[in-house]
Amino acid sequence: MSTFLLVIEYDGSGFSGWQKQPGCRTVQSEVEAAFAAVTGCEGKVTAAGRTDRGVHATGQAVSIETAAETLPSKKLFIALNAVLPSDISVVSVRRVPDSFSARFAAKEKTYTYRILNRPARSVLEGRKAWHVIRPLDISAMRTAAGILKGLHDFSAFEVAGSTQINKKCRISSIAIMRRGDIVTCVLTADRFLYKMVRCIVGTLVEVGIGDRSPASVASILKSGDRRSAGKTAPGHGLFLTRVHYRGRSI
Amino acid sequence: MSTFLLVIEYDGSGFSGWQKQPGCRTVQSEVEAAFAAVTGCEGKVTAAGRTDRGVHATGQAVSIETAAETLPSKKLFIALNAVLPSDISVVSVRRVPDSFSARFAAKEKTYTYRILNRPARSVLEGRKAWHVIRPLDISAMRTAAGILKGLHDFSAFEVAGSTQINKKCRISSIAIMRRGDIVTCVLTADRFLYKMVRCIVGTLVEVGIGDRSPASVASILKSGDRRSAGKTAPGHGLFLTRVHYRGRSI
Repeated sequence: MSTFLLVIEYDGSGFSGWQKQPGCRTVQSEVEAAFAAVTGCEGKVTAAGRTDRGVHATGQAVSIETAAETLPSKKLFIALNAVLPSDISVVSVRRVPDSFSARFAAKEKTYTYRILNRPARSVLEGRKAWHVIRPLDISAMRTAAGILKGLHDFSAFEVAGSTQINKKCRISSIAIMRRGDIVTCVLTADRFLYKMVRCIVGTLVEVGIGDRSPASVASILKSGDRRSAGKTAPGHGLFLTRVHYRGRSI
Repeated sequence: MSTFLLVIEYDGSGFSGWQKQPGCRTVQSEVEAAFAAVTGCEGKVTAAGRTDRGVHATGQAVSIETAAETLPSKKLFIALNAVLPSDISVVSVRRVPDSFSARFAAKEKTYTYRILNRPARSVLEGRKAWHVIRPLDISAMRTAAGILKGLHDFSAFEVAGSTQINKKCRISSIAIMRRGDIVTCVLTADRFLYKMVRCIVGTLVEVGIGDRSPASVASILKSGDRRSAGKTAPGHGLFLTRVHYRGRSI
C-alpha cells in the first residue's frame, strides 16, 4: 500500500464540480479513472476542498491511497499528465505517510475570487472572472471584509443544502486588491461553509457598488440569516488556490 | 465625417491575425463588419499594431474614419459590443480629430509576452502563455535583455518576409518578471520589426535555460543575422497591451 499527495489544477467550466455523481463529468471521476489507467489499481481519492460546479482550482490537494506497488512519484506525475484530459493537470506528486488525508490534515484553505470590473465585456477573462460593470469601491470593500476576519458563526453566509452543524469558521486573512480592471478577493480560513466564499464576495460587491454600507456586514453576521446577506457570486470567478498543512503549504 | 479611437481586446486564437485577407477570419474584418452593421456606413479602420495569427491584444488601438453622422461615443461603445463576436471586445471609444491615425500617431507600443514556466502542462493558461518546462534563470535573462535596450539595428531579430527597409528600433524599456509559475517579458519600443518580440523572447528563453550566455546577445545584435538568434517564440504567448500617444497612453 502507498499514499500520494497530488496538487492539481483544473478549469472548472467543463465539470459538475469535484465530487463523483452518477451520469456527471466530475474532476474526481476523471482523476480516479486516470489513476486506475496508469497503475492498474483503484485508488481512494480524497480532495481537500470539494469544489462546486464551474469552480476552478490552481492548488487543489488530493490524496490517493492505493494498494498498487510503489511507483516513483516522478513517473506518476508524467503518466497522470499523459492520461488526464486537457482541463486537468497534475502540478506535483509526492509520497506521504499512509494515514495522510488531504482533507482531514488540511489546516487552512485559500480561495481566490476574481472580478473583472469595467464596462466592457470580457474576452480574455472568459469563464475565469465575474464581470461587474459598476465601479467597485475597494476601500469600502476592505472595511467590510475586515469585519469578517476572525472566528464567527457564518450561518448568514451559507447557502441552504448543507448538513454541516458547526457554523463557526476562522477567517485568518481576507485581502482585496485591484490590478487594472481585475479585482481579487483572497480568503484564507480553517473551514468554509457551503458556498460561503461566493456569499461573502456577493455581499462585498454590493458594498463595493454602494448598495449597502460596510457596517451592515456586522448586522448580517449577527443575524445568522442568509436572506440578510448579498447574492451568491457565480462559481466561474472562484479558484481554490492553496491548501495549507502543518509546517507547509502546498 | 468623424473619427473615433477605440481600444479593443481580443483573443487571437480564432483569428488569422489583425489584417484583412480574403477567405480568412481576421480581427480587422470583424471590426469593419460590426462598424458597418452599427452605423450603416463603411469605416476606414486602422490599427496601431498589425498583430499576427494567434497573437492577442488587451490594448490594441484602432482609429475609424467614417462618413457617418456623428454618433455619441458611448452609444458606439454599447452598440459595437452588442454586435461583435465574443472574442473581440471594445474597451473604450472616444472621438478624435479627423486627421488622427491610430497607426501613425502612435509614439510607442508595449507588448507583453507570457511564459508558463513549470514541468506540469497548462490548464488555465491554455492558449495564453508559452509553456517552457526547463526552469528559467530570470537574472541571466535580465542581463541579456539589458543589452537590447536603446537604439539598435534589430535585423537579427526579424523574421524574413517583411518589406521594412529601416531596421532601427528604440527599445525604451524591457522588463522581465516572475510571479509564481508565470514569467512575463514586457517590451516597449517606438517600432517593431516583423515578429521581433517573438524572436527576442525566443532568444531570451535560450539564455534563461542556459543554452546561450547573456553576453552572446551582443554578438547576435552586431551580426545582423537572423540565424544567429534564437527560435521564434509561439504567437499565443504574445499580447499587444498598450499603445502610447503623445501626452497619453491608451
